Amino acid sequence: MNLEEFKHKTQIRVRTFEVDSQGIVHNINYLKYFEIGRVEYRRDMGYEILPTGIFNDGLKVVVVRNEIDYKSFAFLDNLLNIYTKISWIKNSSFCFEQVITYDPDNRIICSGKGILVNINVNSEPEKLSKKFIEEIKSFEQNLNILK
Amino acid sequence: MNLEEFKHKTQIRVRTFEVDSQGIVHNINYLKYFEIGRVEYRRDMGYEILPTGIFNDGLKVVVVRNEIDYKSFAFLDNLLNIYTKISWIKNSSFCFEQVITYDPDNRIICSGKGILVNINVNSEPEKLSKKFIEEIKSFEQNLNILK
Amino acid sequence: MNLEEFKHKTQIRVRTFEVDSQGIVHNINYLKYFEIGRVEYRRDMGYEILPTGIFNDGLKVVVVRNEIDYKSFAFLDNLLNIYTKISWIKNSSFCFEQVITYDPDNRIICSGKGILVNINVNSEPEKLSKKFIEEIKSFEQNLNILK
Amino acid sequence: MNLEEFKHKTQIRVRTFEVDSQGIVHNINYLKYFEIGRVEYRRDMGYEILPTGIFNDGLKVVVVRNEIDYKSFAFLDNLLNIYTKISWIKNSSFCFEQVITYDPDNRIICSGKGILVNINVNSEPEKLSKKFIEEIKSFEQNLNILK
Repeated sequence: MNLEEFKHKTQIRVRTFEVDSQGIVHNINYLKYFEIGRVEYRRDMGYEILPTGIFNDGLKVVVVRNEIDYKSFAFLDNLLNIYTKISWIKNSSFCFEQVITYDPDNRIICSGKGILVNINVNSEPEKLSKKFIEEIKSFEQNLNILK
Repeated sequence: MNLEEFKHKTQIRVRTFEVDSQGIVHNINYLKYFEIGRVEYRRDMGYEILPTGIFNDGLKVVVVRNEIDYKSFAFLDNLLNIYTKISWIKNSSFCFEQVITYDPDNRIICSGKGILVNINVNSEPEKLSKKFIEEIKSFEQNLNILK
Repeated sequence: MNLEEFKHKTQIRVRTFEVDSQGIVHNINYLKYFEIGRVEYRRDMGYEILPTGIFNDGLKVVVVRNEIDYKSFAFLDNLLNIYTKISWIKNSSFCFEQVITYDPDNRIICSGKGILVNINVNSEPEKLSKKFIEEIKSFEQNLNILK
Repeated sequence: MNLEEFKHKTQIRVRTFEVDSQGIVHNINYLKYFEIGRVEYRRDMGYEILPTGIFNDGLKVVVVRNEIDYKSFAFLDNLLNIYTKISWIKNSSFCFEQVITYDPDNRIICSGKGILVNINVNSEPEKLSKKFIEEIKSFEQNLNILK
């Protein structure tokens, strides 16, 4: 895991309603943090998510896979870094890779991947726009274009 | 608080992601439990909530006020009773009163009220249907019809 | 509701997992936002909440009452202002008053109150420290000291 | 995915605060449903989870990996089946495999895996008890014992 490959970073703070009885962040909440990272990644590219859940460039995505490896615990009130990159793009889908870290003790909390599919109004997969692909290409260093 | 006045009861179990670092149910989750009680109250009257969030008899409500008094702690895995009644009905609004209890030690966990307003497609308050009012009247013992 | 009486403000952004099928923030989430405001209020006074859920000056609180009036809808991705003040202090309890607003159309989204009780290790109410009371007194303009 | 291999099933109902602006269950909530399935699996074996988050036979687990494949949408108020099995056991870890389905149209909503590690009071991996292993062995048909 080379953090230098991640050009996008945002931060969240662990809240009282996100830790469990063992005093650590409940495992489900990291998917929330990942989702925040994904929306902020797009915001920093100049796009917003509309009340409909669709981005203002027309991108409408559904998540078809998530995976997450929990490496160490995060605790209440920790300020966490969420690193986000897109590692590959295919016809109508693409993959976010993400890492969450905690600065004060330089720890990796968890890492994960999410595969998203671009869909049309009938919820069918739809080819990603050239504009989207070009923007990601020029932003990410090691993007794979899959066939 | 006379539990005999409540003719509707449903149950939920406290889950791992609902307790906080002090090992007790986080205060926000009781509003979730109240909402479950409200939907189940309507289900037991024969109505379902559709994917749009509107009930299948056309009732579309928004919550305009919630209040909740926390009386004692509930813990992970507790099986809780949610008691629900409608205490008053006005032109376009009505009030749920609810109590949550824990059987094994016969404790009241919390009580609360929620005021809901029936709205139309333009999100404006709309008079409640006669059918709705009659059904609640015949179900609840001490319903107040407010002007 | 005079927003000038609120000397503490923090912001949150509405996330995808906080809106419901009607595209608006689900009513339960405002209690989360209120809780964030309360923790940030204390942070700005110089205190942190520890993994145990207790603040680092020893303040350990439980919420005994929440009330919330929903005034207008907030939508996905809205950046909301959370205004927080303490309006009264009693022997072992105090009251947060809070308002959530949305800048672009200058709207009040909701307002609410929460009563918190300071407790000791046996979960019994405990007198608030003089230091706490003095700090709030010097920070808030219209604080009521109740007997 | 052969559902007949799953000897444990529990059900949950999709709630108003679990669907997003597209009217479908937000992807993070399936991890909640998986966690409910895992706790109920253990309950049906005769064990309870205590307020500390530890089971009453001493089993204390942390999740080290989750993966989930989203196959189709679930909607508000859907009553979902959660199928749970343990597919392998290693020295101190084991793997839950889970499938969520919706009866009325006989659909698979999602499937996933979670790897859990048994830990001791110092949060270090600890060998699973013989009792635990024997019980899972006698319950599951196709359990793999990994070295």
